[in-house]
Amino acid sequence: MINSVICQDLGIKYPVFQGGMAWIADSSLASAVSNAGGLGIIAGMNMNGEQLKEEIRKTRSLTDKPFGVNIMLMSPFAEEVSDVVIEEKVPVITTGAGNPVIYMKKWLAAGIKVIPVVASVALAKMVERRGAYAVVAEGGESGGHIGELATMPLVREVCSAVNIPVIAAGGIADGAGLAAAFMLGASGVQMGTRFLVADECTAHENYKQMVLKAGDRDTIVTGRKSGHPVRALKNTFSRQYKEKEEDAAVTAEELDLLGRGALRRAAREGDTETGSFLCGEVAGLVTKKESAADIVRSVCEEAELLFKGAAQWVK
Amino acid sequence: MINSVICQDLGIKYPVFQGGMAWIADSSLASAVSNAGGLGIIAGMNMNGEQLKEEIRKTRSLTDKPFGVNIMLMSPFAEEVSDVVIEEKVPVITTGAGNPVIYMKKWLAAGIKVIPVVASVALAKMVERRGAYAVVAEGGESGGHIGELATMPLVREVCSAVNIPVIAAGGIADGAGLAAAFMLGASGVQMGTRFLVADECTAHENYKQMVLKAGDRDTIVTGRKSGHPVRALKNTFSRQYKEKEEDAAVTAEELDLLGRGALRRAAREGDTETGSFLCGEVAGLVTKKESAADIVRSVCEEAELLFKGAAQWVK
Repeated sequence: MINSVICQDLGIKYPVFQGGMAWIADSSLASAVSNAGGLGIIAGMNMNGEQLKEEIRKTRSLTDKPFGVNIMLMSPFAEEVSDVVIEEKVPVITTGAGNPVIYMKKWLAAGIKVIPVVASVALAKMVERRGAYAVVAEGGESGGHIGELATMPLVREVCSAVNIPVIAAGGIADGAGLAAAFMLGASGVQMGTRFLVADECTAHENYKQMVLKAGDRDTIVTGRKSGHPVRALKNTFSRQYKEKEEDAAVTAEELDLLGRGALRRAAREGDTETGSFLCGEVAGLVTKKESAADIVRSVCEEAELLFKGAAQWVK
Repeated sequence: MINSVICQDLGIKYPVFQGGMAWIADSSLASAVSNAGGLGIIAGMNMNGEQLKEEIRKTRSLTDKPFGVNIMLMSPFAEEVSDVVIEEKVPVITTGAGNPVIYMKKWLAAGIKVIPVVASVALAKMVERRGAYAVVAEGGESGGHIGELATMPLVREVCSAVNIPVIAAGGIADGAGLAAAFMLGASGVQMGTRFLVADECTAHENYKQMVLKAGDRDTIVTGRKSGHPVRALKNTFSRQYKEKEEDAAVTAEELDLLGRGALRRAAREGDTETGSFLCGEVAGLVTKKESAADIVRSVCEEAELLFKGAAQWVK
C-alpha cells in the first residue's frame, strides 16, 4: 500500500483522484472509483442544484465510500450548487475554472475539505491562506480546460511554495507517473484520460475507441487566442474550430455557436465529426479498457514497485 | 552515486547533461559541467566549421573529460560542422531542430555516440532504428525552441516506445526533477535553465538576474503561429514579438527582422529591452548562483536521498 497523508485524511485507500470531467464524471464512474478505494469525483459542470443533488444521491446509492464534487466556477449555477454540496454533506470539493475563495468560507465552516485545481503558484498560495486542505496542481498536458504551465515544473514549483498536500494532475496515466509525482513532492495524483476508458465510464463507445487509438501527438489545443485554452483529440470539430479561431473574419459568436453542445455530442452521442473529445497528451499510454478498480490498483501497484526498487539507482 | 547506464557508457560521473543553448553553451560552461562530472555540451548553433573547431579546441584545453556538441540542424553550416565533429573526434553529439538521420551514418561510422533531441515518439523510434545511442526527450516547458508535448507524458511515452536510454529534458532543475525523470523511465536528465546562472556561464549578468527573479508564470511562447514556437522570459521584446505575430498586417520579413540578433543581444549584451532571453518554465526554482560543480553534485545528491527514502511511501 502507498503511504500518503491524503489517504488518512480523506478516508481513501489509494492516493488517486478521478478528474471531474464534464459529461463524463457521473455517479457511475465516481462511485466505481470510490468503491475501488480512490476518490471518485462528480462533475458539477453546468448542472443546476436539483440535477447535482440527484447525481450526488445516485452516487451515494452506489457507494458508501468518500467521494467529491467538482464545482465549475464559471457555471451559471455555481452559487446554487455551492449550497447543494453543503446540504448534501459532500466530504470533498474540488474547484475548476477560476478562483474559489468567495465560496471557501462557507464550505470550510461546513467541514468540507476544499481542494482547488490550480495552474500557478500564486493561486496555490492564495487558497492555502484561505484554508484549502490541498490543491490539485494541473499541468497543460491534461485534457479539457488547461493552464499555461506543464505538470513537471508546476507541481515542483507549487510543492516548493505551499505546505498543504499537492495532488499532481496532467500527463499522468500509470504508476510511473504517480511515482514521478511523489518525487516532485506530490501526495497523490488525479487522472482523467485513463478513466475515460474505464468499464464504468458511461462515455460513448466511440469516445473510448478514439482514446485507445490516440498516440502522443493526437491532441490539439484550441482557444489559446480567447484566453480559454482547451485540449481535445484532433478531429473534424477541433481542426475546424482551430481554423476558424485563427480567421479574423469569424466572430466570437460564430465560434461560440460552433462549440455549443460539442462536449455532449462527444460524450453522449459519440459524434466523431462534430463532438469535442477532451483528452490529455497521455492518451498514447492508454491502450486497454479495464474496470476502475483495476486501473486504480494497477497504477498504485506499479508505483509501489518503483518506490521499493528506487534504491537500485544508488550505488 | 547514481547508478545509470549512461554514466558507464559515456564515461561521466553524473547522469546530467547541460543543454546546448545558443550563445550560452560555450567552452567555458561546457568544460565546467564536464569537469564537474556531468556532460557539458557546446552549442553548435549557427557557427561555421572554423568557429566550432576553435570552440571544441578551447573546451579540450579546459577539460580532459568527455563532452558533447549540439548540432542545430537548421543551421546554414550544418553540413560543414557535421564533418568537423568527426575530424575533432567529439565523443557525443546531440541534435536539435530537425531530423538528424541524413548525418547519422557517418557519425556512427566515426564511433560518435549520437543522441538526438526528440519531441515525439515517432522521431524517437526512427532514430533508434538508425542507431542512435540514446534520445533526449524534451518537453515544451523547456526554454528555447520547443515541441508540443510536455515532459511528463513525452518522457513516459518515449520510454515505453524505445529500448535505448532516454534523457529527460524540460522543466527539470533539481534533484526532485531528476528523481521524477528516473521514475518515468529516463536514465538521465538535461538541464538548461539551471545552468544559465552557473558561475562559469558567460551569459550577461542581466540575463542571470532575470532568471533568478523569474517566477513560474514569467515565460511566454512566441512563434506558435509560424510553427516554430520558442519559450523566453516575458520582456519588451517577447511581448512585442507576440503582438506583432498576431497582427495580420505584419509580414514574416518584419518579424524576422525584429528577431534577428535578439539571442546575442540577450546573452552577450544583456539588453533587457530588445534581447530574447530564452528560459524554461522552471525558472521559479532557480534562485541562486553557484558553480557548475555545485549544481551537478547537489542535483544528484538530492535525487539520491529521494531514491533511498522512496520505500517510506510503501507501508
